Amino acid sequence: MPLTDDELGHIAQAREGSQSTRRATVAALEEVLFEPFPLLDHGFLRVIDYMGDDGAVVQAARVSYGRGTRKVSEDRNLIRYLMSHYHSTPFEMASIKLHVKLPIFVARQWIRHRTASVNEYSARYSVLDREFYMPDAEHLAAQSATNRQGRHGRVGPSEAAKILELLREDADRNYDHYLWMLNENADGNQVDQERTGIARELARMNLTLNSYTQWYWKTDLHNLLNFLRLRADSHAQYEIRVYAEVLLNILKLWVPETYSAFIEYRLNSVSLSSSAIGVLRKKIAGVDITQVDSGLSSREWNDLVSRFGL
Amino acid sequence: MPLTDDELGHIAQAREGSQSTRRATVAALEEVLFEPFPLLDHGFLRVIDYMGDDGAVVQAARVSYGRGTRKVSEDRNLIRYLMSHYHSTPFEMASIKLHVKLPIFVARQWIRHRTASVNEYSARYSVLDREFYMPDAEHLAAQSATNRQGRHGRVGPSEAAKILELLREDADRNYDHYLWMLNENADGNQVDQERTGIARELARMNLTLNSYTQWYWKTDLHNLLNFLRLRADSHAQYEIRVYAEVLLNILKLWVPETYSAFIEYRLNSVSLSSSAIGVLRKKIAGVDITQVDSGLSSREWNDLVSRFGL
Amino acid sequence: MPLTDDELGHIAQAREGSQSTRRATVAALEEVLFEPFPLLDHGFLRVIDYMGDDGAVVQAARVSYGRGTRKVSEDRNLIRYLMSHYHSTPFEMASIKLHVKLPIFVARQWIRHRTASVNEYSARYSVLDREFYMPDAEHLAAQSATNRQGRHGRVGPSEAAKILELLREDADRNYDHYLWMLNENADGNQVDQERTGIARELARMNLTLNSYTQWYWKTDLHNLLNFLRLRADSHAQYEIRVYAEVLLNILKLWVPETYSAFIEYRLNSVSLSSSAIGVLRKKIAGVDITQVDSGLSSREWNDLVSRFGL
Amino acid sequence: MPLTDDELGHIAQAREGSQSTRRATVAALEEVLFEPFPLLDHGFLRVIDYMGDDGAVVQAARVSYGRGTRKVSEDRNLIRYLMSHYHSTPFEMASIKLHVKLPIFVARQWIRHRTASVNEYSARYSVLDREFYMPDAEHLAAQSATNRQGRHGRVGPSEAAKILELLREDADRNYDHYLWMLNENADGNQVDQERTGIARELARMNLTLNSYTQWYWKTDLHNLLNFLRLRADSHAQYEIRVYAEVLLNILKLWVPETYSAFIEYRLNSVSLSSSAIGVLRKKIAGVDITQVDSGLSSREWNDLVSRFGL
Repeated sequence: MPLTDDELGHIAQAREGSQSTRRATVAALEEVLFEPFPLLDHGFLRVIDYMGDDGAVVQAARVSYGRGTRKVSEDRNLIRYLMSHYHSTPFEMASIKLHVKLPIFVARQWIRHRTASVNEYSARYSVLDREFYMPDAEHLAAQSATNRQGRHGRVGPSEAAKILELLREDADRNYDHYLWMLNENADGNQVDQERTGIARELARMNLTLNSYTQWYWKTDLHNLLNFLRLRADSHAQYEIRVYAEVLLNILKLWVPETYSAFIEYRLNSVSLSSSAIGVLRKKIAGVDITQVDSGLSSREWNDLVSRFGL
Repeated sequence: MPLTDDELGHIAQAREGSQSTRRATVAALEEVLFEPFPLLDHGFLRVIDYMGDDGAVVQAARVSYGRGTRKVSEDRNLIRYLMSHYHSTPFEMASIKLHVKLPIFVARQWIRHRTASVNEYSARYSVLDREFYMPDAEHLAAQSATNRQGRHGRVGPSEAAKILELLREDADRNYDHYLWMLNENADGNQVDQERTGIARELARMNLTLNSYTQWYWKTDLHNLLNFLRLRADSHAQYEIRVYAEVLLNILKLWVPETYSAFIEYRLNSVSLSSSAIGVLRKKIAGVDITQVDSGLSSREWNDLVSRFGL
Repeated sequence: MPLTDDELGHIAQAREGSQSTRRATVAALEEVLFEPFPLLDHGFLRVIDYMGDDGAVVQAARVSYGRGTRKVSEDRNLIRYLMSHYHSTPFEMASIKLHVKLPIFVARQWIRHRTASVNEYSARYSVLDREFYMPDAEHLAAQSATNRQGRHGRVGPSEAAKILELLREDADRNYDHYLWMLNENADGNQVDQERTGIARELARMNLTLNSYTQWYWKTDLHNLLNFLRLRADSHAQYEIRVYAEVLLNILKLWVPETYSAFIEYRLNSVSLSSSAIGVLRKKIAGVDITQVDSGLSSREWNDLVSRFGL
Repeated sequence: MPLTDDELGHIAQAREGSQSTRRATVAALEEVLFEPFPLLDHGFLRVIDYMGDDGAVVQAARVSYGRGTRKVSEDRNLIRYLMSHYHSTPFEMASIKLHVKLPIFVARQWIRHRTASVNEYSARYSVLDREFYMPDAEHLAAQSATNRQGRHGRVGPSEAAKILELLREDADRNYDHYLWMLNENADGNQVDQERTGIARELARMNLTLNSYTQWYWKTDLHNLLNFLRLRADSHAQYEIRVYAEVLLNILKLWVPETYSAFIEYRLNSVSLSSSAIGVLRKKIAGVDITQVDSGLSSREWNDLVSRFGL
């Protein structure tokens, strides 16, 4: 994450600001406001703004006139109740805004979360920097045999070295050619007076999918939890999961009661099908049951067996 | 807007709070935070929270690292450019949250704005107060002859008096019967031990549509502008328009540059059809044209003539 | 559901239509197209149009070129896999459009499902009919003692009779006054030449919340399932649940494989919190555990005990 | 658009289907159903399904019981009224579903239209084909001097030839390395037994942004019109505009009255700011006015002058 001095200066200046507000404020989140959390080799994630806290959730659920005089334990129980009963609207009453730098192939997954606002750096308007994601050798893994969209194991050192060499050479060469096709220098002037160059919106097509882009992204707490449930999951691609994991830590700073209810009722929860409920009831009642009779597929059966120690 | 002492106390307490924040803060909006703006006879609108300011719009449009060192005039021009070219996503980067008390028939119009978050006071869970909207006599008007969903003129004084009497008697009687059917006192205990009463979710069906409800409502700046364009318009029903007009004032306090661009490019703008453009071009070139040849309906023609002084 | 002869004629005419199409078509749903399913005392629900079938879900999930040559069992397994893993986007690829007549207090719950399209009969533009929902005596129940937003038991016959009398009298009287305030006859002409009457948008405020309204409502299969999960649930208010139950039957006609997966993995499923998983693991392993040690509230503990026969 | 024989067979088979339906059906659209419209060098767009027609718009606006017995001219006028007054909800009552093959950099623009359903071919799950977008030489243009995100003019032939060579070589080489890194053949088996290869989700990062992807995309008529207003505009990037132009033709086949109103009130309309209205009023009244006094920027002034022949 080699930020320029100019960028670091802007961030430092923003962090120095201090205003007085009547709004709900979270000291632990203020502490890290604007600061870039480094991610992958060139990426980062910064919290730019937020609205609300745990109290905003209960305040809206109660449609109350003030910040509430109830006890902390009542607020906690209400949040746990709302989370466990999938009452999602009060969680929409808090929002967060991020500045994220991420590889394009990660951005393509991220953007599928539609209930969010996005302003992306425009490669029609501006020239992209020479920054590509290069995985650490330890994250190079083969296609998983069991999960058709996952990876597994680790590639041997010589193969890994060769792959990283290819990735770097191709990204670099394609970026060199991108610049050549643009035919402009840092000031936007022609480099070679004999050529016109092509427009940025065209030249960008030669870049590789591991090129970095960046955007402002804003969503509400309910939709952030949906994002985290999918992207902090072990089946998510590693390169987006690391962003989700940093966001989980930010969630804990921002709304600790919601975070704790989320871990309990979402991230570490399980949804049991009607047939799976039947199997567990029988097992608990001491009645024998086999996969064939259970109504479960063998994958579902194995999942249940391993999760509940049947 | 007869708030109880308890409610006023909660509001006063919330207004006393003062926290330090690094976030974008708008002093003029802080000034009115939590304060109820009275509306109609029992309604109000309070700003509960906000995220961002005019700077948040330009910051996202530029995907910038800091609050920006650009000149105020550059920010203003960018906001005007974004507004006039319908670049809506940067305006999604600011949000506002309101607490609103409003008659149910107004709430039914308001809820049609789907891109918003809502938590409404639940009449399944709680007992509604004895509060109904009674129009001022001056707002009692006949069905408009030209606008099939509007009103026009003013009802004579004796008819108005009779109508208000009916409205009041019916609302009161229905509320009395609502309470009787509930058969519960303020503490939720049975009034008449001989009867069970019926559930709140049932008894409420006897209330009139001018009963007041209340909700927390949160939306982003882009969708707030959409709301205002429709509801601050002269064709909107008076009873929702007064809410929109208070919101327009709040908009001016919150994001003055966006407000000014909104007035110029939305609220006081006009969309000209292809045929209307043709008419104006001819008129300006000194070529004569009649409604019949214009491709406009007579309503469209009359609108154009009166607006441009043809 | 006393439809007029005119309305019945329109419906019969629409049902007679028969066109040839290359689109996915579901014979069982065509059978009931346009037909009103009666609901409550004056309500109904009609399927007006639909797009797609079970095959549309698998076709989109596979991004395939044709209708598919795979075996039925493969399609079924794919649908079950998508449902059980919360892969929701393929279910968005089918849509349904309804015409619904329903009491206003039910419409106010229904409209909270935002990801849908709605066109409601306008009481600013038109005069509402004299139709109010009157519950059957058997559905008059007291406030539930355990569920703070539900009902329980049954009201005694004399109390029920009195309540129904009040509901009917109040709705009738308020409707009479509504007409008087409008001062217009069926042709929209003044009744009493001495009075102007008031606009429809005003007069409607005197109507009770059990007045019927109607709308066209369109949503996709994914959002329909969300609607059904909440509204076909035993905790939903009876008056909206009956609509959801008719929709469940329509779902079965339309997309039988999706219906069956929905019953298995959503409607009859259960979400277990992290702590609840721990309790079941211990029980299955033969380890004793009490509520106090479980991390569950007593309500959660009792739910778990009764569901799994602990 | 070199479709395989297998794909063409699936399409032909789908086109042969003919079912009887009571639903609104559009013969002109049925004619082209499932057929691929070729776009760019390897792309296409196919209509997979649709719901509703022009009649569906008026039927919902009127909340009517049948298909309507009104005259065609009344339906046309209603559609024009709805379009010109921005009554958007009736246009949500018709929907269309497409299968689109498009370069990834085009897909990244397209996906920004959030109110739509998407299922994209997964490069985590499957191997992408060797297909990249190569512009025709005539579409290679320099960065526009006036429009900071557009292109202008035409690149000279020798520069164009060199650019196309670079684009082709880079895309090809990167694809070769993609395959090498995957280390799997068409059957998914290892090519080189000495190596494991890396997972598809990783190897894809080496591909260029002009690689083709494909997806199922479904939206409603209202949101399709929003898409067309932005993407069929002359400021849209050429490579997405060609898709929008094919969609405009499809729109004309599908809903001819809506198409015609859209052209008149959206695509060829103009939005005049408050200041621009003032300028036109003065010009028409014969009063002189200069840019400086107009309240318009010089860009706005020049636009107005050229559009209205001032």
